[in-house]
Amino acid sequence: MDRDLERILDFAIELDRLKAVTRRTKPVGLDRHENSAEHSWQICVLAQLLARHAREPVDIVRVVEMLLVHDIPEIEAGDQVIYERSPADRAVTEREAARRIFGLLPGAQASWCLARWEEFEARQSREAAYAYAMDRLMPVHQNLRNDGQSWREHKVPLEKVLTVNAAIGEVFPEVWEDVRERIVRAFGAGA
Amino acid sequence: MDRDLERILDFAIELDRLKAVTRRTKPVGLDRHENSAEHSWQICVLAQLLARHAREPVDIVRVVEMLLVHDIPEIEAGDQVIYERSPADRAVTEREAARRIFGLLPGAQASWCLARWEEFEARQSREAAYAYAMDRLMPVHQNLRNDGQSWREHKVPLEKVLTVNAAIGEVFPEVWEDVRERIVRAFGAGA
Repeated sequence: MDRDLERILDFAIELDRLKAVTRRTKPVGLDRHENSAEHSWQICVLAQLLARHAREPVDIVRVVEMLLVHDIPEIEAGDQVIYERSPADRAVTEREAARRIFGLLPGAQASWCLARWEEFEARQSREAAYAYAMDRLMPVHQNLRNDGQSWREHKVPLEKVLTVNAAIGEVFPEVWEDVRERIVRAFGAGA
Repeated sequence: MDRDLERILDFAIELDRLKAVTRRTKPVGLDRHENSAEHSWQICVLAQLLARHAREPVDIVRVVEMLLVHDIPEIEAGDQVIYERSPADRAVTEREAARRIFGLLPGAQASWCLARWEEFEARQSREAAYAYAMDRLMPVHQNLRNDGQSWREHKVPLEKVLTVNAAIGEVFPEVWEDVRERIVRAFGAGA
């Protein structure tokens, strides 16, 4: 078999490791934390479904491509909990991890993944902003259904939840307005 | 919030249930069965990475769209184990399940999902053939790394493994040739 094909297939097996990287959020109805692989799938679907409701039109293909690869470096770096580490620290660790893990692929595929991962991390393009909004919206939405489970468990203060997730409002103002109110109510109710 | 937006967000929570639908395959290195949500993500990534190696060019965007939604009806129908049920039985159960689950969405999004799910199931288009090849290739590849784990556990005979997975060869003849040999060797070694 062609050596490039072999490297891609070996990489696909490496991807199994993302199924062991757990996040703080629990899927609604399940008594376990979710992993970054299943989370990635879910926000790709959500991104597709919400596309026509975005404030500005986006290239949804690019969004999905970014979301497919955005968490892969966690295989090397672990899940970088958004409420805990400084952005600068996270950036360095994740960039090294991204180069290591995508470096397992043949050149063309490695560049393809890195370009999308970097665009997502830089959050400069409209597509990256949309992708990031999905990455924030889903766990907030799950948390609201789970009585603020991960916020309670990790004592995340209301103000931090609002700051970190305000990015949702840049892409879906109407959704953020609603979600924001529900977050405030959830904290008022002791979440 | 707009009622359509609400329905899409409710549907996103329904998607959490796919994380509880287990498959027969175990991720390499993990002592548990994988679920259909994380599997869907993995084959989307694999599809993207292999695109330029396909025997004939495909619209990879359509392939990924199909793979994102292809297992969602399992939320209603459960995982339909490919080695066990007749294709006709599976088709009826899954079609009903697809209509129920996608019917939770607003009209435009419901049609979007159903069209892709139906194209995948019909396996007539080049894109559907490619998507199906991914859906077969990944578990075979994992099984080969796990000493034929799911074939052994469920006493699937060699001939059935070869018949069911021959679809890989229609899209990636070189990969199938190699994988086929390794399957035969694995069974020879007592898998």
